[in-house]
Amino acid sequence: MSPVLAIHGGAGTMARASMTPQDEAAFHVGLRASLRAGHAVLARGGPALDAVTAAVMAMEDDPQFNAGRGAVYTSAGRQEMDAAVMNGADRAAGAVAGILGPRNPVLAARAVMQHSEHVLLIGEGALAFLREQNLTWEEPGYFHTAHRWQALQTELERRRLAAADTRDDAAKHGTVGAVACDAAGHLAAATSTGGMTGKLPGRVGDCPVFGAGTWADDATCAVSGTGHGEYFIRWAAAHEIASRMRYRGESLAVAADAVVADLLAAGGSGGLIGVDAAGNVALPFNCGGMYRGRIGADGVAWTAIYREELVAG
Amino acid sequence: MSPVLAIHGGAGTMARASMTPQDEAAFHVGLRASLRAGHAVLARGGPALDAVTAAVMAMEDDPQFNAGRGAVYTSAGRQEMDAAVMNGADRAAGAVAGILGPRNPVLAARAVMQHSEHVLLIGEGALAFLREQNLTWEEPGYFHTAHRWQALQTELERRRLAAADTRDDAAKHGTVGAVACDAAGHLAAATSTGGMTGKLPGRVGDCPVFGAGTWADDATCAVSGTGHGEYFIRWAAAHEIASRMRYRGESLAVAADAVVADLLAAGGSGGLIGVDAAGNVALPFNCGGMYRGRIGADGVAWTAIYREELVAG
Repeated sequence: MSPVLAIHGGAGTMARASMTPQDEAAFHVGLRASLRAGHAVLARGGPALDAVTAAVMAMEDDPQFNAGRGAVYTSAGRQEMDAAVMNGADRAAGAVAGILGPRNPVLAARAVMQHSEHVLLIGEGALAFLREQNLTWEEPGYFHTAHRWQALQTELERRRLAAADTRDDAAKHGTVGAVACDAAGHLAAATSTGGMTGKLPGRVGDCPVFGAGTWADDATCAVSGTGHGEYFIRWAAAHEIASRMRYRGESLAVAADAVVADLLAAGGSGGLIGVDAAGNVALPFNCGGMYRGRIGADGVAWTAIYREELVAG
Repeated sequence: MSPVLAIHGGAGTMARASMTPQDEAAFHVGLRASLRAGHAVLARGGPALDAVTAAVMAMEDDPQFNAGRGAVYTSAGRQEMDAAVMNGADRAAGAVAGILGPRNPVLAARAVMQHSEHVLLIGEGALAFLREQNLTWEEPGYFHTAHRWQALQTELERRRLAAADTRDDAAKHGTVGAVACDAAGHLAAATSTGGMTGKLPGRVGDCPVFGAGTWADDATCAVSGTGHGEYFIRWAAAHEIASRMRYRGESLAVAADAVVADLLAAGGSGGLIGVDAAGNVALPFNCGGMYRGRIGADGVAWTAIYREELVAG
């Protein structure tokens, strides 16, 4: 079995005109760094769960992406992060929602999975549990970025003026995620997000809702979604792909395309990444673009932003 | 189309010896009151969504059940409630998690569905949103019951002594829920819970995780689960039933039995209620009993606790 890893860093309309070549190049660099962090795990024979964790950590540490450092702000000017991990071999799962503190929310989700009896912990209760875990914590200042703060001010001003919402969907509700198939044929998925700019405090999207934005089952696929999370929840997007594969005999590609088309028909923009136990990868999206990439056994990192083909970098 | 409604009030080992005839009779009375509240809506041609809301409200108001008044306590001695509603016609959905204040958490979930852009709101952020809604609030004392408080003390003492956990599962993680098919053939589901006695603060189970403990889609079924929520999440229990019906052509009864058996094989005790658009009802469980009931167009309330047949009351 040849291991493979795929990632996303958010999806949306992403008008090409609004990004400079320097912006684009920086995103490719960030995506490649994530791919290589995950690949390093797989190349030494490590498990898919560790690979997706490493790939997501790299994007959480990179302030370009809406997760960990660089997370967006709620309407109250705070950051509330959600993260989830799921292991396909035993369906072990862990998630956190509405937290600020741990440097890497994906490690907080893993702590819930591995060191609690529970699957989902939220808010202050989650933080109390996480303080007993061996995690690196950061002050709020670490997570702050000027561009996310400015995005909130712009959004609050737009609301004050009741002006039309012309924001890029990817900026509105970015997410990062990774899926992997390791050398043993085991699958895993991880997702992490700051949510939506100007979201209501307490709003939780599809990321920690297993079956919606995150799913992994060796029998079918591992999936991580990005987009308008409410639609991913109402369509049980990730589990719907698994069900189509399992009960309808569809390939990962056919099932993933069908679900992304269903989401679009319902009004839900976004995309997702998926991998099956044969190492097939799907990266469909129904909007202008999706920060995305894949890396196989040869260690060549392939990345893309808009509708163009992946490029090796 | 002949409307129908089914309810549950928790599932578990429920050793018959531990309940007096008076206890049993009181549960039957509580279940019938819930069934009649939901039936009153359906009988006047009301929508399934209103019927399941009314049925769940009746159980939230009844301190016998672990939802609303009479909710269990966390290990910190507080009450944290979760609730969810989903409408099968348009997959509209709303849920709250980790709240204490609104008299009827199911109405809080409906407010999220109908008056926010979001599907899931948690904790303090949820409460801030809910304060702007037209809901009845109660002081913490309203929700308090001596028997739940005593159950927490017993559980904390058990942990202090590191003694075996011999509690009834139904007492540990009760939940209430309702599913309905109205005269127009539309489906809806609602679930509400206080969670598990002695749960970690911030723990959220399957109730507000759509596709796990709550689901409704007119094309397949409406489902509400009760039991060890972590397993319902990891098996996407409710959406798995819908998928088996949709893609495998299974009947509601066959699909629901299969999922409840899968949960048992994995170690997850519990049960669920389901209804399809033809008005078929399933009430399977894999443990000693499930407080449950159903009511059809004739208004006769059928209820049961253990493995016995439903009795008209």
